[in-house]
Amino acid sequence: MRLLLINPNGTSSMTAQASRSARQVILKSTDIIEKTGIGAPLSIEGYADEVMSIPSMLAQIAEAEADGAEATVIACFDDPGLDAAREIAAGPVIGICQAGVQAAMVLAKRFSIITTLPRSVPAIEDLVYRYGAERHCRKVRSINLPVLSLESERAHAYSVLLGEIAKARDEDGAEAVVLGCAGMSDLAGKLSADTGVTVIDGVIVAVKLAEALIGAGLKTSKTNAYAFPRAKGNSRDESKSRSRGFQAAVQTSI
Amino acid sequence: MRLLLINPNGTSSMTAQASRSARQVILKSTDIIEKTGIGAPLSIEGYADEVMSIPSMLAQIAEAEADGAEATVIACFDDPGLDAAREIAAGPVIGICQAGVQAAMVLAKRFSIITTLPRSVPAIEDLVYRYGAERHCRKVRSINLPVLSLESERAHAYSVLLGEIAKARDEDGAEAVVLGCAGMSDLAGKLSADTGVTVIDGVIVAVKLAEALIGAGLKTSKTNAYAFPRAKGNSRDESKSRSRGFQAAVQTSI
Amino acid sequence: MRLLLINPNGTSSMTAQASRSARQVILKSTDIIEKTGIGAPLSIEGYADEVMSIPSMLAQIAEAEADGAEATVIACFDDPGLDAAREIAAGPVIGICQAGVQAAMVLAKRFSIITTLPRSVPAIEDLVYRYGAERHCRKVRSINLPVLSLESERAHAYSVLLGEIAKARDEDGAEAVVLGCAGMSDLAGKLSADTGVTVIDGVIVAVKLAEALIGAGLKTSKTNAYAFPRAKGNSRDESKSRSRGFQAAVQTSI
Amino acid sequence: MRLLLINPNGTSSMTAQASRSARQVILKSTDIIEKTGIGAPLSIEGYADEVMSIPSMLAQIAEAEADGAEATVIACFDDPGLDAAREIAAGPVIGICQAGVQAAMVLAKRFSIITTLPRSVPAIEDLVYRYGAERHCRKVRSINLPVLSLESERAHAYSVLLGEIAKARDEDGAEAVVLGCAGMSDLAGKLSADTGVTVIDGVIVAVKLAEALIGAGLKTSKTNAYAFPRAKGNSRDESKSRSRGFQAAVQTSI
Amino acid sequence: MRLLLINPNGTSSMTAQASRSARQVILKSTDIIEKTGIGAPLSIEGYADEVMSIPSMLAQIAEAEADGAEATVIACFDDPGLDAAREIAAGPVIGICQAGVQAAMVLAKRFSIITTLPRSVPAIEDLVYRYGAERHCRKVRSINLPVLSLESERAHAYSVLLGEIAKARDEDGAEAVVLGCAGMSDLAGKLSADTGVTVIDGVIVAVKLAEALIGAGLKTSKTNAYAFPRAKGNSRDESKSRSRGFQAAVQTSI
Amino acid sequence: MRLLLINPNGTSSMTAQASRSARQVILKSTDIIEKTGIGAPLSIEGYADEVMSIPSMLAQIAEAEADGAEATVIACFDDPGLDAAREIAAGPVIGICQAGVQAAMVLAKRFSIITTLPRSVPAIEDLVYRYGAERHCRKVRSINLPVLSLESERAHAYSVLLGEIAKARDEDGAEAVVLGCAGMSDLAGKLSADTGVTVIDGVIVAVKLAEALIGAGLKTSKTNAYAFPRAKGNSRDESKSRSRGFQAAVQTSI
Repeated sequence: MRLLLINPNGTSSMTAQASRSARQVILKSTDIIEKTGIGAPLSIEGYADEVMSIPSMLAQIAEAEADGAEATVIACFDDPGLDAAREIAAGPVIGICQAGVQAAMVLAKRFSIITTLPRSVPAIEDLVYRYGAERHCRKVRSINLPVLSLESERAHAYSVLLGEIAKARDEDGAEAVVLGCAGMSDLAGKLSADTGVTVIDGVIVAVKLAEALIGAGLKTSKTNAYAFPRAKGNSRDESKSRSRGFQAAVQTSI
Repeated sequence: MRLLLINPNGTSSMTAQASRSARQVILKSTDIIEKTGIGAPLSIEGYADEVMSIPSMLAQIAEAEADGAEATVIACFDDPGLDAAREIAAGPVIGICQAGVQAAMVLAKRFSIITTLPRSVPAIEDLVYRYGAERHCRKVRSINLPVLSLESERAHAYSVLLGEIAKARDEDGAEAVVLGCAGMSDLAGKLSADTGVTVIDGVIVAVKLAEALIGAGLKTSKTNAYAFPRAKGNSRDESKSRSRGFQAAVQTSI
Repeated sequence: MRLLLINPNGTSSMTAQASRSARQVILKSTDIIEKTGIGAPLSIEGYADEVMSIPSMLAQIAEAEADGAEATVIACFDDPGLDAAREIAAGPVIGICQAGVQAAMVLAKRFSIITTLPRSVPAIEDLVYRYGAERHCRKVRSINLPVLSLESERAHAYSVLLGEIAKARDEDGAEAVVLGCAGMSDLAGKLSADTGVTVIDGVIVAVKLAEALIGAGLKTSKTNAYAFPRAKGNSRDESKSRSRGFQAAVQTSI
Repeated sequence: MRLLLINPNGTSSMTAQASRSARQVILKSTDIIEKTGIGAPLSIEGYADEVMSIPSMLAQIAEAEADGAEATVIACFDDPGLDAAREIAAGPVIGICQAGVQAAMVLAKRFSIITTLPRSVPAIEDLVYRYGAERHCRKVRSINLPVLSLESERAHAYSVLLGEIAKARDEDGAEAVVLGCAGMSDLAGKLSADTGVTVIDGVIVAVKLAEALIGAGLKTSKTNAYAFPRAKGNSRDESKSRSRGFQAAVQTSI
Repeated sequence: MRLLLINPNGTSSMTAQASRSARQVILKSTDIIEKTGIGAPLSIEGYADEVMSIPSMLAQIAEAEADGAEATVIACFDDPGLDAAREIAAGPVIGICQAGVQAAMVLAKRFSIITTLPRSVPAIEDLVYRYGAERHCRKVRSINLPVLSLESERAHAYSVLLGEIAKARDEDGAEAVVLGCAGMSDLAGKLSADTGVTVIDGVIVAVKLAEALIGAGLKTSKTNAYAFPRAKGNSRDESKSRSRGFQAAVQTSI
Repeated sequence: MRLLLINPNGTSSMTAQASRSARQVILKSTDIIEKTGIGAPLSIEGYADEVMSIPSMLAQIAEAEADGAEATVIACFDDPGLDAAREIAAGPVIGICQAGVQAAMVLAKRFSIITTLPRSVPAIEDLVYRYGAERHCRKVRSINLPVLSLESERAHAYSVLLGEIAKARDEDGAEAVVLGCAGMSDLAGKLSADTGVTVIDGVIVAVKLAEALIGAGLKTSKTNAYAFPRAKGNSRDESKSRSRGFQAAVQTSI
């Protein structure tokens, strides 16, 4: 089976890292298409970064499905454009926050999430609520480091994460911790080993969930909210507006 | 005071209609800047339409603030890009769904919302939850007509709306009705007169709320989640990535 | 336009202070009627104080509407008698807690409230829930000072408020603070300037919201829960019970 | 033990009816003090009726506790003034809505409430939320008859109630029905026998719950929100304001 | 009237203690049947302990009803098997957690619960949510002592409880404390006296609530979810499966 | 990898059917151990059936893990004993209700559940709340047929299910339907094909999710609530109580 793993931001080294994590767990028969955001912010650290990354991501998803991708994993913990992606995709679309949260609800009674910057905390809290985990998630914590310093200040970031996991366990009563940034993906195993806490990386569980849904023969429902967009064009080229489909529209806009 | 009234979709006749509604209620001293989505879908009827309209809308908001706009009203009932707009704007940013819902919570104990297509119902329900109105909003209803037919099939749309308001009152126990599309703005007064029900148009209340917040001297908090985006550029032009601000980034991407 | 600003407690210096705040922000064309509770507790510091202040407040609202008031602002953060006031009034009735909370939900993702005595915390928490802000409000804090000491120990109160706002920002992650007592109204501007946090005073936003709703042509829905009271008199004078309206009833009881 | 059964409205025949229901179930050793609202509306059918009935009710509760009442039952389904009553009383104060809802949560998984007028539905829904029963209560229904017609049109009211209970069972899946008005108290037994549904009368369960809490030696917590009101007088007679307690204050105001 | 007080765990000294508490508050006319879990874990400290104690408990409840018990109190704070017990019993079945929580919601605005081991905290939080008390319960705390050490290390347990009640009052703003283990039952009075906080023991309030519901003539609704189990036998003896009732089934399985 | 698929009821033909569904989707490398409840009710149709099935199920899970099972799927839509099973198991334990609900939240905005008997509706609603899907699940419906008639009246059951799916789509606005009984497992594909609605079978998605979690290297967190039971024996054999582990205890009790 073929999966799209898309990193909506514009930093290809982060895509590579997420892909390495994914490749450690996928089935032999799984073929991963990697994509990095085109013209997107170098990291997603707020609402504007999020929305700026989505139009090109949608075009890339459409392209990947045309190339045979049966499911899509969005490798950014804000799950940017998740509803829109489900609308334009035929296959299942998995956000790493939703996947991480769902796994945590199966493996533990209470968990905490640890993200990068404090400014991302409210956005992730809103996702926790949207995914129905507000009674299971004790706290969304941050390590107060920008996304890109997960690469540039690796040892420091690791040490701060260790301390924050200990606080989650001791102060929050968290029984599991979900890593709140795709850029932390390759640290999950070592953090789990070093702390004894169940540490969940959203990239890994999202990729496995994508394989699972394909294996179950399930696709995104096209009955109502996630039905394909109605064809009507956009305002630059109104003459074509009734005859153009979604893919043309997204290509125009990026 | 100067307000931006932005219609994020690409249909300028809808902008004009919303503007007419707004101009009927604004203060003499208020100066409205009207903007229509550039390169945006002709109507917002789903998640993909929403996200495709946001990047250019953000650039237009930044531009309007540079031209002296003290507050922004987003004239689309899905409140597309509301968080992102608050992040890039200094002044208050008002979504017509949030404004309509807040007014309904002040004027009535229970209300319903009436939108255009059934596919928009779940998105609006999610907004109702997000704005904390899930205990006040009885139902999100739809008239099963596309947005643009509010203009092209005006009499029919009016008659269907009349029937749906009656159902909201009689079946839902709704004491007020919020019109769930900016394109219904100019019908609010007549619908209210014809049904005896309090009919709330989001455009009108949003514009008045914008004037109110400016008058109160309040701006968007820049303390955490809505702080201006961190400068770091985007992936097309990485060499500039540390020195560019948001406005440059959005201009690149549209 | 004419507004009623009613302080339901019996301390006229507090009415004067709230009125000064209001007059700094109202439109030139707005005419404020000020009223102070008659026979009411000198401050509202608990449920009994609240309910003791309501009957005379309702009579005063009816009187003010007879004198041309188009909207009412109840200048007490417990929003005492808000539903009852909406039932007897034709125009919109705004509580300063609801107005403050609604403004905070527009201007920030997360906020805290700071009130006077700890005993008021649960009542305000219940209001936060009622207004649907339980996911946006981080904490209701108190400075452990009685309402009247906001006047008598002004410098001390100011300094304690400064400290509590810092805690709200640092411990709660609050991006805005709503002042939880009408008696704090004149401190909002200076507190905001001194802390850099968006500080919201309910009196100011309520008065502006009242102007906005009048400007929008909206009134309280009379369809069901807020319909005018049914005429049936009260038990002291049963012979008249079928022919007396609400106003007579409230005048009897105070 | 001595209980106060207070009907906050001004119709003494309703007090007598509630008292008859109570006397059928109380212990031999229980002594009921009956009180009817003084100067109160003849029925409680809306928010204004509610708040107009509370000041005299509080004075009567204080009086009854001075006469040895160990607990209070407020015999009106809107639970008017419940928090205020708990603040001024030493003993437990039971509202018949809360008691009915708590009993229903013990005896059934899902229940509905049937009240008199449609205008009371939102107020009772708010109580259902407040008592944490929103996931157990299927629907608040009304029979569209005024409170006083429960006495004047008895046979008709009974027949309409029968039909509404059937709807609650068949349409709502209600396993129990709580009668949403003290004036329905004497119908509970016959309705239960005629429909086979568990019909719960709030007066009966409230009186028994009052006996139970007295028997358990429990009183209202005076630690914070329900602490006795702070002494400070009211605005008619400020000279006494520091030395007067609550009872004097309520007596002044009625 | 005759009540069953069943301790689902296998430690008879805990049954005796709960029974002593109950006997201090029951009516003279009440006759308590005491039962201790047969083949059950010696304490209930987790989900497996819970479910292992239920089958024999159900058989004992059926037996007690056959012997004339009109109501059942399950004396374990996890309320194990509460729904199942209501399904097989005709009379009301009261769990001490639900009873304690309901009493706390009547006597105080905010309360905390104090249990034994940290591992029980999430289970009790889930009960708090199930009983609709999530807005009233500030925190579920633990003293980090196993259930059986409430007997073996009595003085130490008492002193730790004292400290935890002080924290609940000072850190949580709790106005009442519910003791979260039947084994703490005999400490409630002294803890309340020593701390000044309203301390609620679930055993005591459950027994009084059971008397109250019997006195009110109410039974478990048999309309839907709590209808008696359908007869169909179990898999060891399929030949009898259509003719056997519940009691036979539970006796087979223990 | 080796999975346990356990049907907690005592009907082996239902186990066989669930197993056939599972075997159609599992990986080639997956080895399924099938188990049927021992001494368990022939179907799970209520709370008593549930709890009677759990003790033997726990023993069977312990046994299967000893035989190398790396994850467990409980093939009953009430998810009986899910928390207890997670406590005694080292590997992940998946309930088919939770798995079905999680898949529905990924594939659709709104879904409904269709179960067998009306008496199961409240129990499933409680699970929906527990799994955080109360905002996504429109309705829990029933076809009013006992579990075993899914086998004995197959054609009739199919036709009733078809009608109920149509109602879910048309009346509820459901975009997907989750089948609310393991006994419906083999109908999912045909129902989906015949109605065009996304029909989700919990058995299939649970088995795939189990494979996914094993593949991700994740196990049940043993940090707090799901830590293995504390050794202390049970009341039949108190002499051994400090030295016996869980497995011995469950074997004694069945």
